[in-house]
Amino acid sequence: MTPDSWVPIPDGSPFPLANLPYGVFAPAGGPPRVGVAVGDHVLDLARALGDDTFARPSLNAFLAQGRSRWQRVRADLLDLLTDPACRAEAAPALHRRADVRLLLPFEAADYVDFYASEHHAANIGRMLRPGQEPLTPQWKHLPIGYHGRAGTLVVSGTDITRPRGQTRPPGTGAPTVGPSRKLDIEAEVGFVVGTGTPLGTSVGVDDFADHVFGVCLVNDWSARDLQAWEYVPLGPFLAKSFATSVSPWIVPLDALSAARTPPPTRTEPLQEYLRDGADWGLDLSLEVRLNGHLVARPPFTAMYWTPAQMLAHLTVNGASLRPGDFYASGTVSGPEPGQRGSLMELSWNGAQPLTLPDGTTRTFLEDGDEVTITATAPGPGVTRIGFGEVTGRVTAAGEAR
Amino acid sequence: MTPDSWVPIPDGSPFPLANLPYGVFAPAGGPPRVGVAVGDHVLDLARALGDDTFARPSLNAFLAQGRSRWQRVRADLLDLLTDPACRAEAAPALHRRADVRLLLPFEAADYVDFYASEHHAANIGRMLRPGQEPLTPQWKHLPIGYHGRAGTLVVSGTDITRPRGQTRPPGTGAPTVGPSRKLDIEAEVGFVVGTGTPLGTSVGVDDFADHVFGVCLVNDWSARDLQAWEYVPLGPFLAKSFATSVSPWIVPLDALSAARTPPPTRTEPLQEYLRDGADWGLDLSLEVRLNGHLVARPPFTAMYWTPAQMLAHLTVNGASLRPGDFYASGTVSGPEPGQRGSLMELSWNGAQPLTLPDGTTRTFLEDGDEVTITATAPGPGVTRIGFGEVTGRVTAAGEAR
Repeated sequence: MTPDSWVPIPDGSPFPLANLPYGVFAPAGGPPRVGVAVGDHVLDLARALGDDTFARPSLNAFLAQGRSRWQRVRADLLDLLTDPACRAEAAPALHRRADVRLLLPFEAADYVDFYASEHHAANIGRMLRPGQEPLTPQWKHLPIGYHGRAGTLVVSGTDITRPRGQTRPPGTGAPTVGPSRKLDIEAEVGFVVGTGTPLGTSVGVDDFADHVFGVCLVNDWSARDLQAWEYVPLGPFLAKSFATSVSPWIVPLDALSAARTPPPTRTEPLQEYLRDGADWGLDLSLEVRLNGHLVARPPFTAMYWTPAQMLAHLTVNGASLRPGDFYASGTVSGPEPGQRGSLMELSWNGAQPLTLPDGTTRTFLEDGDEVTITATAPGPGVTRIGFGEVTGRVTAAGEAR
Repeated sequence: MTPDSWVPIPDGSPFPLANLPYGVFAPAGGPPRVGVAVGDHVLDLARALGDDTFARPSLNAFLAQGRSRWQRVRADLLDLLTDPACRAEAAPALHRRADVRLLLPFEAADYVDFYASEHHAANIGRMLRPGQEPLTPQWKHLPIGYHGRAGTLVVSGTDITRPRGQTRPPGTGAPTVGPSRKLDIEAEVGFVVGTGTPLGTSVGVDDFADHVFGVCLVNDWSARDLQAWEYVPLGPFLAKSFATSVSPWIVPLDALSAARTPPPTRTEPLQEYLRDGADWGLDLSLEVRLNGHLVARPPFTAMYWTPAQMLAHLTVNGASLRPGDFYASGTVSGPEPGQRGSLMELSWNGAQPLTLPDGTTRTFLEDGDEVTITATAPGPGVTRIGFGEVTGRVTAAGEAR
C-alpha cells in the first residue's frame, strides 16, 4: 500500500502516487523542463532532485539512461513525495498543473504505427473488401506496421488543420485536389522507447521492459479519402503525415504492473520470436469523446498483438532503436460496436451516421469538432491511474497555394 | 569558366571546383567536422573559414541557415580556393581524402522514399501482377511515396547484415523465419532538406531550391521475400528498415545547374500543385557495380517525377519539414534492360540470372557481395562532376535469438 503524500491528491485524480507520469512543462516565463504529475500539481524534477538531466525540453536524455536509472528515480520520487521532512525543500518545485503549459514530452526519433487490433483490421477489411476474407493472410502471423512521420507528432491541444490533398471521388475518373472530406480519428496507445540498440541486433519479446520507458495516448488523425487514392501499393503516406497528436504524460511501465493481462487466445501458432513468456497485454480502458459526447469505449485488452510483440517484430530484421523512438498500437477497437476507435468504423464508412446527444449527426469530422481521448488502468489495490488526455480541434483547411 | 585552384585537382576528378560537395569527416585522432571535397582533398571548413557552424559532426546547423547562406559560403569557398594569396593560410585546413574517415553527413529527421521511375514501377507491376495494368491507377497523378526508417540510414562503406524475418515461401502454407533469400539493392538518388517549414503549410513546386540543399546517392537495400509477405495493405516495413546506405558527399543544388533537364512528357494532366514552371529533371548518369562488375547504367533523366514535384507532394497536406529531412527517388530504372536499378528487375525476379564477367551468376545478393553505385552529371562547359560512391558489402545474417 502506497503511503500518503504531503502533496494533496484529490480523490479520483488520474495522477495518484502510484502513477507519477513524466512530461515536459513550461512554467510561466520559464524554460521548458521535465516534470512529474502528482494530483493537480507538477513537480519540477531538476529543482526537486537537483539533477540537470531534467533541466531540458525533452525526456530524451533520461530515456537514454536505461531501466535501472528509471527505477531509481521513481523510488527517489516516492520517498520525496511521502516523507514530510522533504516538504519544505521540495514544495517550491511544485507548480499547479493549471498554471503551466505542457509540451511534447520527447523528441521523436522514428515513429512506427501498428495495426494490432483484430476487430479494427477486420472491420476495415469488411468495408474495403466486402465478400473477401476480412484479414490479410499474414495478419495473425505478424503485427503489421509501417513508418509514420515523426516530425508531425504534436502535443495534445494543438489545433489540427484539415489536410488538403488528392482524392478520386467514387464513380469519377479524374482525381481532384481539395480539403479532405473524410477526416477521421484513430484512438491508439503509444510506446516510448528509452534504451537504444545497435544496428544488426534484435530485441527479444521478453526484453520489452528493458527498452520501453512508458505509455501514452495517441490520436492518429487520418484522411480516409486521401488514403483510399494513394495507399496501394506502398501504404498510407499523406493520409496520416499531416498530424499525430500525443498525450503530454508518459506513464512509466512500472506504474502499469496491475494492468498487465494475458492477450487474447492466439488462433495461429506464433513464430518463436513472437512467443512471449510474460503477459504484456494491458488492461487500459479508453474513452473517445466528440465535442464532449462519449462516442466509444475501446478496450486495449482486446488487442491481438502486445507491445512486447510489436517491438520484437520491429527489430527482428536487425533494425536499431534510438532513445525517443515511438510506436503506436494502431486503432484500438473492441468486439462491440460501441468499442470502435475510429469514425470510419463507428459510422461504417459514412453509411450509418452517428447521432450525438446534441441532435447533430456525424460521419467524419467537421471543422470545429474537438476530439478527446482519455484512458485509465488498474493501479494497486482499488485505485485506478489515468493517462490524462489527448485532445485536438479541427480547423478549416488553409488556402490552396 | 571557373579559374584554377591552388589545390591540385587531377584530370577527371569527380570533385572539381564546380562541384564542392559537403560531407562530415573525422581526421586521424580528431573530432568529426564538416568538410568540402576538392580533388583528392577535404577542406576543413571550420578551420578554413573560421566558422563554428562547421565544427560539428553533422551538416544540420548549416542546413538550417537557408539558401542565401549556402550561396554565400559557396562563393567564399570558390574565392578561397582560387586566390593564391589564401594558400598559405588555408593549406593547413586541407586533408588528403585517403587519410580521413567519412561519416553520415547529416542527422536525418524524417526519411521518405518515393517510387518515381515509371520503368521501375511498371517492371515491378508486370512481375507481381502479370496480365494486369502494370501501373496502379494513381501512379501518373501523384508521386507515390512512403516513410522509411531514418535511424537506419548508414554511410557508404558500412557492412550490411543480411536481415532475418518472416516469409512465406511460394506454394507453402505456413510462414517461416530466417535470413532473407531475396536480398536486393535499389539504386536511388537522395535529396537533403535544409530549410524547415511550419505545420499546416506547403512548399510550392517552384520553391524547391529554397528548401533542398543538395543531392546524394542512395542504396535502399530491400528484402524482397520479407516484402512480399508483409506489405499488403500498409506498405513495406521490415523489408526496407534494416539499412539504407547513403553516399558521404552532398552535392549542392548550385553545382547542378548544367544538369537540369525537362522531365519526360506527361501523359496525364498534372494537378496544379504539381505543375512545375522550372525544369527540375536532372541528367545524372548512375552506374551500379556488383563485385566490381558493371551491371546497370540507370539514367535519372528517365524519372517521371522530379524532386521538386516530390517535395510539393510531400507537403501538400500541410506536413512540416525539418532541417535534415531526407527523401529518395525510388529505384532509378531506364527503358532499356541494362538500365535497371534493382536485381529484381535485372534478373526478372530470379527467372533470368545475371552472368557476371567472372563466370558466376546472380539472381539476388550472396553473402560477401559488394555493391557500389556511382554517378556523374554535366558540369559547366565540358567538365563532369561526380557524386562519389555509395558502397556496401553483405555479411551473413546473425544468429537467431
